[in-house]
Amino acid sequence: MHLFYTPDIEPSVKQYFLNEEESKHCVRVLRLSVGDEVQLIDGRGGFYIAGIKDAHPKRTILDIVSVTENYQQRNHYLHIAVAPTKNIERLEWFLEKATEIGIDEVSLIICQRSERKDARVDRLNRIITSAVKQSIKAYHPVLNEAVPFSKFIAAGLTGQGFIAHCGPGDKEALKSVLTTGGRSTILIGPEGDFTDSEVVAALNSGYKPITLGDSRLRTETAALEACFEVNFLNRV
Amino acid sequence: MHLFYTPDIEPSVKQYFLNEEESKHCVRVLRLSVGDEVQLIDGRGGFYIAGIKDAHPKRTILDIVSVTENYQQRNHYLHIAVAPTKNIERLEWFLEKATEIGIDEVSLIICQRSERKDARVDRLNRIITSAVKQSIKAYHPVLNEAVPFSKFIAAGLTGQGFIAHCGPGDKEALKSVLTTGGRSTILIGPEGDFTDSEVVAALNSGYKPITLGDSRLRTETAALEACFEVNFLNRV
Repeated sequence: MHLFYTPDIEPSVKQYFLNEEESKHCVRVLRLSVGDEVQLIDGRGGFYIAGIKDAHPKRTILDIVSVTENYQQRNHYLHIAVAPTKNIERLEWFLEKATEIGIDEVSLIICQRSERKDARVDRLNRIITSAVKQSIKAYHPVLNEAVPFSKFIAAGLTGQGFIAHCGPGDKEALKSVLTTGGRSTILIGPEGDFTDSEVVAALNSGYKPITLGDSRLRTETAALEACFEVNFLNRV
Repeated sequence: MHLFYTPDIEPSVKQYFLNEEESKHCVRVLRLSVGDEVQLIDGRGGFYIAGIKDAHPKRTILDIVSVTENYQQRNHYLHIAVAPTKNIERLEWFLEKATEIGIDEVSLIICQRSERKDARVDRLNRIITSAVKQSIKAYHPVLNEAVPFSKFIAAGLTGQGFIAHCGPGDKEALKSVLTTGGRSTILIGPEGDFTDSEVVAALNSGYKPITLGDSRLRTETAALEACFEVNFLNRV
């Protein structure tokens, strides 16, 4: 069954109108017609089954057949703050894979050693949305605009915080320090890693130093490894 | 320090000649000169430090300073057999990421629902090699030529075998069934998954059915998830 991402739908509605682009896709491309059923997700946990009432190519009318709220709600909240990679495609595939595996929020942090100082959030969000649809996630991960590392740290920490870095100092494995079922924020640095002063700033702000194993990982691989580990440890 | 992949070097040698391409890269591109040190890996666990004796642009001579055998030897053997993805780039990044995270052998299996019937192993091997160098792995993962699923299964199983599929039937999580420290082979199907008859054939050949969690994962994501889980469970 085809799935549409419709962030403006409300669980209370009995009927929904696909916008012009989606109507065209539904009727002209997918060639769906009256009576056919489609799936809708609102990105906030709502999963809908709807039947086509009027296959209008510009304003398709859907009758809502069923609504499931909190569809496949995750049992924890994962926020990864990662430095945009020099090659933006590496960040893009991290976003796609993290969406498939499970993530709630991504922040882009510009660090002292960041070669890339910005990233187009609109484009990156489209990649997340297509992964949301492909893997049928009713929750759409939140992607925040890029901010300087110092500003991100200063905003304060809710739940557990961790910083993965390759510098000296004691580090724990996530499986030893992560409290499952809670909210966690993990900092992943740029190519060239965090600077010592950034690490110190994070530690002073309550972030715990972690290791993601002995392998030397690229930025996007480290971010995905962290995403893997938190989901794995939270899996019942 | 720059690293060269030199599969033909032997731990016993005292001197090594870079081939013409590497000599040119060493002298003309990196502009290294007499006395500079480089790293060499042989892909079989040998990690070398060598000093440039003669910075010849076509036949650079290196004096071996130190040899470490079984460098960062892994404590288990992981073999993933995966169906080549329709979009070959997805298989390519799996190979890059699996090499970073840790894998010993990859087989390409052509399944009943495979849209892609072959893959250029030489090109894929170059991707593995660059990941080996980037993440400084002394062991080069082995990539096998594509074979039909049935032929792969018929070849027999050494150690534990698992098949990850989305069809019906009881499945265990890897953390419940994987014996750490051993040899494991994991089967990952194509877009559209394994057919029921392929699953039955695998079970009859001693492969155990596993789940990689509730998320709907693409082929390459499932393969990487399996790679991550086995490494995570084997991490002391």
